[in-house]
Amino acid sequence: MNTLLEKILADCARYTKEGQPASYIPELAKVDPDKFGIFVSAEDGKEYFAGDYTDRFTMQSVVKPLILLQALMDSDTETVRALVGMEATGKPFDAFNYSDQALTGAHINPMINTGAIALCTLIQGSNYQDKFSRLLNLTRRLADNPKLEVNHAVYMSEKMTGNKNRALAYMLKAYGMISAPVEDVLDCYFQACSISVSCKDLARIAHIFANHGVHPVTGEQLFPAGYAKYVNATLATCGMYDGSGEFALNVGFPAKSGVGGGIMGVIPRRMGIGVFAPALDKHGNSVAGMQALAELSKELDLSIY
Amino acid sequence: MNTLLEKILADCARYTKEGQPASYIPELAKVDPDKFGIFVSAEDGKEYFAGDYTDRFTMQSVVKPLILLQALMDSDTETVRALVGMEATGKPFDAFNYSDQALTGAHINPMINTGAIALCTLIQGSNYQDKFSRLLNLTRRLADNPKLEVNHAVYMSEKMTGNKNRALAYMLKAYGMISAPVEDVLDCYFQACSISVSCKDLARIAHIFANHGVHPVTGEQLFPAGYAKYVNATLATCGMYDGSGEFALNVGFPAKSGVGGGIMGVIPRRMGIGVFAPALDKHGNSVAGMQALAELSKELDLSIY
Amino acid sequence: MNTLLEKILADCARYTKEGQPASYIPELAKVDPDKFGIFVSAEDGKEYFAGDYTDRFTMQSVVKPLILLQALMDSDTETVRALVGMEATGKPFDAFNYSDQALTGAHINPMINTGAIALCTLIQGSNYQDKFSRLLNLTRRLADNPKLEVNHAVYMSEKMTGNKNRALAYMLKAYGMISAPVEDVLDCYFQACSISVSCKDLARIAHIFANHGVHPVTGEQLFPAGYAKYVNATLATCGMYDGSGEFALNVGFPAKSGVGGGIMGVIPRRMGIGVFAPALDKHGNSVAGMQALAELSKELDLSIY
Amino acid sequence: MNTLLEKILADCARYTKEGQPASYIPELAKVDPDKFGIFVSAEDGKEYFAGDYTDRFTMQSVVKPLILLQALMDSDTETVRALVGMEATGKPFDAFNYSDQALTGAHINPMINTGAIALCTLIQGSNYQDKFSRLLNLTRRLADNPKLEVNHAVYMSEKMTGNKNRALAYMLKAYGMISAPVEDVLDCYFQACSISVSCKDLARIAHIFANHGVHPVTGEQLFPAGYAKYVNATLATCGMYDGSGEFALNVGFPAKSGVGGGIMGVIPRRMGIGVFAPALDKHGNSVAGMQALAELSKELDLSIY
Repeated sequence: MNTLLEKILADCARYTKEGQPASYIPELAKVDPDKFGIFVSAEDGKEYFAGDYTDRFTMQSVVKPLILLQALMDSDTETVRALVGMEATGKPFDAFNYSDQALTGAHINPMINTGAIALCTLIQGSNYQDKFSRLLNLTRRLADNPKLEVNHAVYMSEKMTGNKNRALAYMLKAYGMISAPVEDVLDCYFQACSISVSCKDLARIAHIFANHGVHPVTGEQLFPAGYAKYVNATLATCGMYDGSGEFALNVGFPAKSGVGGGIMGVIPRRMGIGVFAPALDKHGNSVAGMQALAELSKELDLSIY
Repeated sequence: MNTLLEKILADCARYTKEGQPASYIPELAKVDPDKFGIFVSAEDGKEYFAGDYTDRFTMQSVVKPLILLQALMDSDTETVRALVGMEATGKPFDAFNYSDQALTGAHINPMINTGAIALCTLIQGSNYQDKFSRLLNLTRRLADNPKLEVNHAVYMSEKMTGNKNRALAYMLKAYGMISAPVEDVLDCYFQACSISVSCKDLARIAHIFANHGVHPVTGEQLFPAGYAKYVNATLATCGMYDGSGEFALNVGFPAKSGVGGGIMGVIPRRMGIGVFAPALDKHGNSVAGMQALAELSKELDLSIY
Repeated sequence: MNTLLEKILADCARYTKEGQPASYIPELAKVDPDKFGIFVSAEDGKEYFAGDYTDRFTMQSVVKPLILLQALMDSDTETVRALVGMEATGKPFDAFNYSDQALTGAHINPMINTGAIALCTLIQGSNYQDKFSRLLNLTRRLADNPKLEVNHAVYMSEKMTGNKNRALAYMLKAYGMISAPVEDVLDCYFQACSISVSCKDLARIAHIFANHGVHPVTGEQLFPAGYAKYVNATLATCGMYDGSGEFALNVGFPAKSGVGGGIMGVIPRRMGIGVFAPALDKHGNSVAGMQALAELSKELDLSIY
Repeated sequence: MNTLLEKILADCARYTKEGQPASYIPELAKVDPDKFGIFVSAEDGKEYFAGDYTDRFTMQSVVKPLILLQALMDSDTETVRALVGMEATGKPFDAFNYSDQALTGAHINPMINTGAIALCTLIQGSNYQDKFSRLLNLTRRLADNPKLEVNHAVYMSEKMTGNKNRALAYMLKAYGMISAPVEDVLDCYFQACSISVSCKDLARIAHIFANHGVHPVTGEQLFPAGYAKYVNATLATCGMYDGSGEFALNVGFPAKSGVGGGIMGVIPRRMGIGVFAPALDKHGNSVAGMQALAELSKELDLSIY
């Protein structure tokens, strides 16, 4: 299996030359575009890996499924559903042109920025730093990695330049969908996007979603199975931005990408995968990462369709 | 299993009172809204059923996966992909407001009207009646039912009132995406929508998609496995109109609904399901049909997520 | 005055090199892009001219104010208003992406294709050839030119290639805004667009709109003053496609352009102008024509603002 | 003339019962909806009036032409044009759904919120309080009323609840169209909207626009004639929100309405009119105010078309 992973990275290395690292957050543009790593957390917790699998990068949108999970755990399914919809929007992740009429939850979903920002408000905590701490702790627990931290430079870069997210958050506020101070909510969201992880962390988190909340080694039920299915279904239809249909066809399992270059792949009942390659396509998805997942899916027959 | 199906129909019967049969095609409005049937084609070809599972209704959009399959078989994956995209549009199935700019394949997908009309042109045949005959034969073969026919009254009703589809087809033509005479293409499409089937037919067709092209009893490979995965992936992301995200969450497998009241459910590697209940929600999906599939999914753990 | 017109043509001749003649109707692409003419019908019917003012070209969208006028004369203001709106759409003249919801009159206006096609149905006549004949007669009468005829080659070219207009017309039909056979309505519309005129014809027609329906020489009231104001107000807000705001600023009077290269300018209570230069900008407006009108407006203080 | 104005107010008084005062700014909802006043500044500075013409209300969007004028005076036409477009958007004044692509100046105009906020940055001043002071001084000078002040309660109400404007401003900032701190720019904008005026003030300001910058009594040229034409042309195409086409037809001269219930009417080369009646239609325009202007336009033949 490690050999297979090595082969796939070699085969797909040329795709690291396609696309560009994210540039709209200045700190992200500094990354080495040749980096390429993969990590698989397989049945019974066996682990396989290749390339730059220990390199660290920020989660960016990969944190959205965790925000959704924490919101589900801290409020409940009905509250989450009342706040944000479930349908693909057919638009980029940071689109603002939803509707001529008032913005409603039906226009957005948890995997686009507007939806994820809104869901931060459903996390428990007496203030937004508390809320973020809960989310960070959940992420650490699912990754079995108590050392996960925010990349401060990326966080500050996001905070300084995140005016489109500010616009989206004020739109949510204007339509009564959030009531907390916008900068507080965004501070939680920007920190969440800036959590620094490796492929290994993503693969372990993904494995628990794949395993419907059960830790693959200890057997502990970390959260209800229904929440895992909620998250996985959302990833399948909206996880790869407006490239989700293409990804379903070419790869065939739930996944979430982030503009930091990471992708978290969830193969229900089987395994979790983390991949990292920072050059992105126009949708914001890692080019080489998607190719590697496509090849691995083919080799191991991972498509759920 | 038959007892389970009976119980589910009884539990969900009240949902036949919610929603309304399609009215925009006059002939469809004549249906009895209390009809409710279900059919399951399970492992090894064992079959289970309850309610009005022999009642006939027209396929309407349920024929779209078959048009996609025939187009894949008669041209190839690249040609299909070049003509129509894969992404959910975030819009109703008959939307025309895709873009300020020129319409391109990237704006549409095979499960919305515009995409399905375009794909009719990729079916082989010296004329559009030939093309339709191929599609009907494929449908008969997958359903193991050589008697499948067009419901002529519904076809005529669609032809008389299908001006929105005419608008969509002329838009395709205006942007050079189809070159054949619009009325010829539409005649193929309207006939396809008007094929009369039962829940049993849908379940058997679905089972072959679930089985990746292999007939569950004879073991014959009726079409390449890759085409089945193509269709199933498309159903998972776009099969239930702009209710696809909700359906993924509540039910959790690829499916296609039609405004005739039918839903075809594909549980990959396991089974095919047909359900019929003509009262529709605002997206055009059978209300009781979706409820029955949700309950069955829960009972048999059918979610693929 | 003729000297001024000569000077303006000379000054603006270089603009005939900017832009391109319309190419989407093959017959229109054959025009000589260096043609440039202007004609002014001034107070008391005095007439001035320069350049290719006798050259003939098809009216295209310049006929829209005449369709609106004929619809007002043959039905009444309320019926016209009930069918088509008055607001600028912020979209190109042949846009189809008005609304996620059903198309209504409020989405369109008489100066875009959809609105003008709809208004053809309000012209009196036992069939659409009769209706067109009434429109042609009105055009002849306002232009004082009984010889105006359809350019048959352009008409056939529009009919063969007018699929976007077919799409728009079927959309109108799908939403119940027109009931007649689409091809009949389009035949009226395509013929109207193909009426062959010169700058002189346009200037004389414009002068009667400027004069609120009164013939500037005979004094005859050809149609009610209120209809002229209706048309002129519509031209001021929507007459130059999605370049109407810019035109109001740079030129400052009601005008209507057509992709044949003509512009008809209406200076209320003062004069009518026709200009012809077939190279168009991205909005479909004659580049040199607009420049000539801007210069003339400045010289003679024609802005109504 | 005063008798005519009295008669018009009496005729149109019933329209004060149609529509509703603005409620989205809480302070505005407190107004008495029966208020109704009109003031005309006519040739040679003669003044006529009726009803509640001394009642004070906040300018709201009526200040937009003054922001545009101040921006023109403090930068120049090219800079203004480079920042904001001229075309009607076909959307409500506070729409945010302009484009799937990046926001550009071409998507907006000076009479919608996004455009007016952007133009505040072009006013001269070492800080935004200075910029606002310049704008207030200009307003005072045009109104011949040095006592004009901000209504502090309305300003605070706008500031507290103006989250949609914050969203629009952050969108401008995200796309590099403004660089100053958003709250500073908005403080200038919110104060501008909160300037308290009477019908008399509006009529006098309008008269100077009508007079192309020349004071009707002193004959002083307060600003270049070209700027007046710029503003008037913008009002004619976009001044009455997405009811501008209808207003051109029914009334027929440049005008600007505000959700405070005021309308400023500019009859080029003739007069200025102010009207006040706080019940608004769905576009945000004063219902009784528009009726009064329509009747006055008919009586005095004020239409410019």
